[in-house]
Amino acid sequence: MDKTFIFGHKNPDTDTICSAIAYADLKNKLGMNAEPARLGSVSQETQYALDQFGVEAPQFIEKVPEDIKNVILVDHNEFQQSVENIKDVRIIEVIDHHRVSNFETKEPLYFRAEPVGCTATILNKMYKENGIALEKEIAGLLVSAIISDSLLLKSPTCTQVDIDAAHELAEIAEVDLDTYGLEMLKAGADLSDKTVAQLLSMDAKEFSMGDSKVEIAQVNTVDPSEIYAFQDEVETEIAQIIKDKDLKLFLFVVTDILNNDSEVLASGAGADKVEKAFGTTLENNRAVLKGVVSRKKQIVTVLTEEFTK
Amino acid sequence: MDKTFIFGHKNPDTDTICSAIAYADLKNKLGMNAEPARLGSVSQETQYALDQFGVEAPQFIEKVPEDIKNVILVDHNEFQQSVENIKDVRIIEVIDHHRVSNFETKEPLYFRAEPVGCTATILNKMYKENGIALEKEIAGLLVSAIISDSLLLKSPTCTQVDIDAAHELAEIAEVDLDTYGLEMLKAGADLSDKTVAQLLSMDAKEFSMGDSKVEIAQVNTVDPSEIYAFQDEVETEIAQIIKDKDLKLFLFVVTDILNNDSEVLASGAGADKVEKAFGTTLENNRAVLKGVVSRKKQIVTVLTEEFTK
Repeated sequence: MDKTFIFGHKNPDTDTICSAIAYADLKNKLGMNAEPARLGSVSQETQYALDQFGVEAPQFIEKVPEDIKNVILVDHNEFQQSVENIKDVRIIEVIDHHRVSNFETKEPLYFRAEPVGCTATILNKMYKENGIALEKEIAGLLVSAIISDSLLLKSPTCTQVDIDAAHELAEIAEVDLDTYGLEMLKAGADLSDKTVAQLLSMDAKEFSMGDSKVEIAQVNTVDPSEIYAFQDEVETEIAQIIKDKDLKLFLFVVTDILNNDSEVLASGAGADKVEKAFGTTLENNRAVLKGVVSRKKQIVTVLTEEFTK
Repeated sequence: MDKTFIFGHKNPDTDTICSAIAYADLKNKLGMNAEPARLGSVSQETQYALDQFGVEAPQFIEKVPEDIKNVILVDHNEFQQSVENIKDVRIIEVIDHHRVSNFETKEPLYFRAEPVGCTATILNKMYKENGIALEKEIAGLLVSAIISDSLLLKSPTCTQVDIDAAHELAEIAEVDLDTYGLEMLKAGADLSDKTVAQLLSMDAKEFSMGDSKVEIAQVNTVDPSEIYAFQDEVETEIAQIIKDKDLKLFLFVVTDILNNDSEVLASGAGADKVEKAFGTTLENNRAVLKGVVSRKKQIVTVLTEEFTK
């Protein structure tokens, strides 16, 4: 039988890696010849989850090999987030929880997107629908994915379906959800070996807001003050990025995973928009945004509104 | 609660109309305030099915009214096939069995496409998944949709899942699948009140094949000779369409729903491509294509290959 590759998005996070592994497991149990793959390096957080459950990272691919005709996408659908030669292969399935955009096929396919907090939550359903029992290791990877995407069930993107799935999966994986979850998030939040340049690029995304280009970089930590000890160095680096990319605003979001707040550093000509959008005052270019943890739901939306006023 | 409109594609067929009605029924039973709608007139075939089960046609809409914020699409996803102001409304769900193309949303949604022969087949599953019993009338509409899309289970687009669903639904609807199916198809194939211009436009689609523009019009009938009694008139009308649209080929496909063959009439400079593509010889510009009933799977594919050689 022809082999099918299953992979998530570029700059893979824990949901993308774990969902690729889990869905390949399910597909193989259902009789398909499936193999998980990844489009980028494994983060510390993801590696912690893989080690915890004794699972190998999927193979790295730069593009889909010529002898593979069929692929399945998990945790993404937009072509610019996918493998470089995505238009040369046949997409037979998509399992995702994002908006649909910049995606098309020539033929009908199985496309399943649900508005939940995590792809792993959908896969948990699919094991049940197919009557396949989850092994401890796979349940462990799936609960890790939910913990990651929901910041341990605290993110506003998290739904009741995700919460229920996380509890079910933690039981099968034989871990205490809160204890394991915090350990895993802390492993991902260990920034001690990162350079300032890495901190600013490891999870940075650029957005168009009105006529302005805005970049928002986010890092998770257990102690924001540790990062802001190097504020001068951080701001010098950001000034260079703003110049190179002609940005109106660079917002550095340091999210405290223990308190579920974020301390942001705003740079660029549009820094005042941050004050207006969040009704706050920057001091030393910084402000604490209480209860803000989701870039997608709590930052991009309000900033876009301010920039398009 | 805000009302949600549910509708299928323009030039509605039986699957589009019946799936809109059935999904609105399911959604209302699940607590949503949903209303089916249609984007065009009801065909004879669809009207036969509606009359048979005593169900009213959904309301006609030219565009989604201003007070309706949320919509659900069934049996299509491509924006050019949808309502004119589709970009002004929020699409909260899609249930479909076509390829995905020219579709996008700003937010995550429930998107369910499966590679089966009919949207109604997916809806039959969804009633079961939600533990909602199908009423006789709704089962009747769903089986009518499957009969229509699969030409009574004969089309190569028909899968085992469609076949199983059709038998289940016929039983709930208390109809004999073959007897009712043929009666419904015959009602749709009654072309006695159609003008030649109507026959050539009622189900015509234009395609780009290589550098050529090709139009393929299809009608269902129980007696192809009835239509070809007016061959001169048909060819005169086609010659005008070819001239107006600068077509390389106009293929008129008259499908015999009793024998599951099609008798085609080829006009235009590219008529020889039909002979080569199907390994046949046109006599009096006509040829019988044995076992050919699906424009999508059996005609467009082989003709496209011939035109792009």
